[in-house]
Amino acid sequence: MPTWNTLKGDGTMKGYLLATLAGLVSIAATFALVETRAIGINGSGSTAAFESDGKLKLPTGYRRWVFVGAPLTPNGLNNGNAGFPEYHHVYVEEKNVDAYLKTGSFPEGTVIVKELTRVLSPTFPDGSRTEPSGRGYFNGAYNGLDVTVKDSKRFAKTNGWGFFTFGHHPEPYAATAAEKSVAECAGCHMASVAKTDMTWVQFYPLLRSK
Amino acid sequence: MPTWNTLKGDGTMKGYLLATLAGLVSIAATFALVETRAIGINGSGSTAAFESDGKLKLPTGYRRWVFVGAPLTPNGLNNGNAGFPEYHHVYVEEKNVDAYLKTGSFPEGTVIVKELTRVLSPTFPDGSRTEPSGRGYFNGAYNGLDVTVKDSKRFAKTNGWGFFTFGHHPEPYAATAAEKSVAECAGCHMASVAKTDMTWVQFYPLLRSK
Repeated sequence: MPTWNTLKGDGTMKGYLLATLAGLVSIAATFALVETRAIGINGSGSTAAFESDGKLKLPTGYRRWVFVGAPLTPNGLNNGNAGFPEYHHVYVEEKNVDAYLKTGSFPEGTVIVKELTRVLSPTFPDGSRTEPSGRGYFNGAYNGLDVTVKDSKRFAKTNGWGFFTFGHHPEPYAATAAEKSVAECAGCHMASVAKTDMTWVQFYPLLRSK
Repeated sequence: MPTWNTLKGDGTMKGYLLATLAGLVSIAATFALVETRAIGINGSGSTAAFESDGKLKLPTGYRRWVFVGAPLTPNGLNNGNAGFPEYHHVYVEEKNVDAYLKTGSFPEGTVIVKELTRVLSPTFPDGSRTEPSGRGYFNGAYNGLDVTVKDSKRFAKTNGWGFFTFGHHPEPYAATAAEKSVAECAGCHMASVAKTDMTWVQFYPLLRSK
């Protein structure tokens, strides 16, 4: 076996250059590996995947993405017929949160998930109930999944974002979803939040700060 | 400048050994880096850190932990004097969520963060306001931070969990916090949720499912 002494004895310039080169290649490999791992943690199954007919595949792992807000418009406050009677649990992947905080807009391919979550059985007409912490609203069962994807070419007609619903019911959600009509989803975003990259960042403290 | 040809011309055994060694060192560095990054995402600053006098240091990075629920008990529904007038954004580190889902209890050292978040300026007596999605509650400004830590020895008197408040106001929060009295925090947990590891998992859909 060679020892450090015998190795050090090789004084040729070429040997050192070769070693340096190998080191640089390995450093490059290091960064490649780190990047792969980051995607593995934050993005597995989360980058928007479309089928050949344009349907979006159900995202996975989104409950571990970065939570940005939980707006709540209960039936009890909307004449018993709220457009969105559940909590909205809104999630964005960490890498896209980072990009938004840096640039003020979401990168192409950004997926925003809104999981609908019922309020725990109400005991008051406004939809609230009483628990040890007080009277209010508490997160109940998952009850649906809406997703929006940023793709400026694919969704050029709706300001670069496409809107999808994987069901308004308990799990399991649909495996795929076709793009919703403008009237169903994009229209309201285009009318109200076109200036904030089609997203309701005014309700998301983490994103609103920038 | 040397070219690949001149480098390849160096055929000494020592040169290749040196290069191989450099490569191995870099590969080892690769794994060290990957490990560091994994900790950076999931654990940096999140493992409970105590000062010598027993004060807990302010956790960091918690807004990127796993969100588990957002109970809301607004002033408007609690005679203008709610114990917790804001949204509670409750977060747990991913590794501890995983452990809970597997075992039904949180590992020693688990940190649960409850960040208080005001509702956007109310326009109705119940604290709600109207937005395009309907009348309800929307996440406003961050307004405080409460933390609980599982340490069966340190907090043996309160079922293994210690409770801390880093302020009930906008950021910046306090850098450290002393343990709160039983009457202020632990008492209610001990009375109401001792059977579920002192946590309100009944309000957290992700954890309640197990």
